[in-house]
Amino acid sequence: MSEYRHDPVYDHWVIIAPNREGRPEEFIEAGWQRIAWNCPFCVGHEEDTPPELARYSLDGQTSWQVRVVPNKYPAVTSTCGWPPEVKTAHSTLPGYGVHEVIIESPHHTTSLCELPLAALALVLRAYRDRLRAVRQRQDLAYGIVFKNVGAAAGASLEHIHSQVLATVVVPPPIAGRWTHWKTLFCQTGQTALSRWLDEELQSGQRLVGVTSHFAAVCPFASRMPMELRLAPLTPEPYFEAVCDARLEELAQLLSDVLLRLEVAVPNVAYNLIVHTAPLGSGPHDYCHWYIEILPRLTRAAGFEWGTGCFINPVKPEEAARRLRDALPPSRTRKL
Amino acid sequence: MSEYRHDPVYDHWVIIAPNREGRPEEFIEAGWQRIAWNCPFCVGHEEDTPPELARYSLDGQTSWQVRVVPNKYPAVTSTCGWPPEVKTAHSTLPGYGVHEVIIESPHHTTSLCELPLAALALVLRAYRDRLRAVRQRQDLAYGIVFKNVGAAAGASLEHIHSQVLATVVVPPPIAGRWTHWKTLFCQTGQTALSRWLDEELQSGQRLVGVTSHFAAVCPFASRMPMELRLAPLTPEPYFEAVCDARLEELAQLLSDVLLRLEVAVPNVAYNLIVHTAPLGSGPHDYCHWYIEILPRLTRAAGFEWGTGCFINPVKPEEAARRLRDALPPSRTRKL
Repeated sequence: MSEYRHDPVYDHWVIIAPNREGRPEEFIEAGWQRIAWNCPFCVGHEEDTPPELARYSLDGQTSWQVRVVPNKYPAVTSTCGWPPEVKTAHSTLPGYGVHEVIIESPHHTTSLCELPLAALALVLRAYRDRLRAVRQRQDLAYGIVFKNVGAAAGASLEHIHSQVLATVVVPPPIAGRWTHWKTLFCQTGQTALSRWLDEELQSGQRLVGVTSHFAAVCPFASRMPMELRLAPLTPEPYFEAVCDARLEELAQLLSDVLLRLEVAVPNVAYNLIVHTAPLGSGPHDYCHWYIEILPRLTRAAGFEWGTGCFINPVKPEEAARRLRDALPPSRTRKL
Repeated sequence: MSEYRHDPVYDHWVIIAPNREGRPEEFIEAGWQRIAWNCPFCVGHEEDTPPELARYSLDGQTSWQVRVVPNKYPAVTSTCGWPPEVKTAHSTLPGYGVHEVIIESPHHTTSLCELPLAALALVLRAYRDRLRAVRQRQDLAYGIVFKNVGAAAGASLEHIHSQVLATVVVPPPIAGRWTHWKTLFCQTGQTALSRWLDEELQSGQRLVGVTSHFAAVCPFASRMPMELRLAPLTPEPYFEAVCDARLEELAQLLSDVLLRLEVAVPNVAYNLIVHTAPLGSGPHDYCHWYIEILPRLTRAAGFEWGTGCFINPVKPEEAARRLRDALPPSRTRKL
């Protein structure tokens, strides 16, 4: 069983999850070669995953396009007792929470860009619906959807998939961020994301794509080369509240941006993270959901791990230019 | 020229350092093979580095054992104007600071464990003296010494070396940590490190080594497998204040612990970080210097990058046991 542990020196929480040591690993360190393997996420291998929690099909089809299953090697689970009965000497909590896998295609696809837009919109619907489900449970404090693409980004299987993770503790960097957002909102009446987006749209230098309701930008203070932030143009706290039509528009922008990234950096490894408002009661008007894409082109070293401050060797203006130039302007982009 | 940039959404600072894109890279991604190369850190190649800032020799020898040089590809420099004359619209500061390299052996050595203890003590003296030098300057806010060993840990050259980096901004995670420490110190009269160490020494489960004045422990809430923290048993804010005799004792413990790590995990890549009190005037009685060693056995993925919360698949008790069992109990260890 896993557990949350609090460090009194760093004032941080970690999840100690020894059960994850045995999970399958498709990649080996030398050269990231792929080991031949029966992929458990491919159609026909449904028995290789724990029982399905949800499935999605394309209009007019009966076969599945997207499946949601519990993570076979969960970092946290809902099967351990909660709330804990006994307090231990150290700051420890049982590893209570949700850890699911979203299988994003029945075929052995390795890039979201290979999906038709309707299929990508289904993937985003699965993200939304799973975050909705964890919000409804009332016993969780924090939820996130994230995606690891490529071994360098921490993926252990290459078949496209994402993960839903919801915990009973709010990671302190996130709690600190929310406090900062609340302060800014009280002072200005605007969300931190809105203020930032206004500046980015006015400057345009780091803009990669924009649609009627969303923008994709390489942030001014990007931690990593080619880092991207996608957010709605008007403040919306909950990714869970986005309607189907908007998800289709978002799929269009996301697909365009990811294709630019893959053209600009062939075989790019990256993490994609969907950030939404705190679980639990609001108001959350200081929040503004967003998606971040973190290409893993540099290796965090001692300075980054020691300080949390990043040294980024590529100017975000240059990163945005490379992404804009990677493909002809798309119909979704109105610069 | 590099610059500091503040992100209003994350409330973090990054260093944008385009000049670092051109630095030499000994490793290639496929298999971390080493590219044949004239190592600029080897004896006889002194001309390949910027002019020396300091050198250290072993007793009775005239040749150098440790050299300190400016980083040829600095993330920050002292040659740009400071304080800045013009405020820009965005939160930007010139990349003012110090970035030095400590070359830790004249020979092409790849592990600190290969050094005789007297040579390792010289390395620690160089760390101390360089931190002293940045503290004396009065125009810097934060200083750190760190070391990247192995390509997976972000090293670009394998010849053992460390880096000194000092900045005009305090990275917010560090500032937050100091605030947390101050609060704890006001409440308890103890440093956070002391309180933590007391618990660790009492439990003994995660203890790897201890000498008269120092202990090495796998912290209860380790972020990474085999993570280690070395600290003085009694609170001392400044690594810069450690006397030569104590550095020799520390060298003994560090060498023992690193050898255990290298035996337990052959070819381990790791980061080593020396944390000291804030630069600038004190009191810093809430601070307690320490060294952290972060083996890079797992890859941080979307969850870690998205939240700052780590999923660690190896229990720190188990990690400490593996390290203790890697070698016979050393004379330095009194369990």
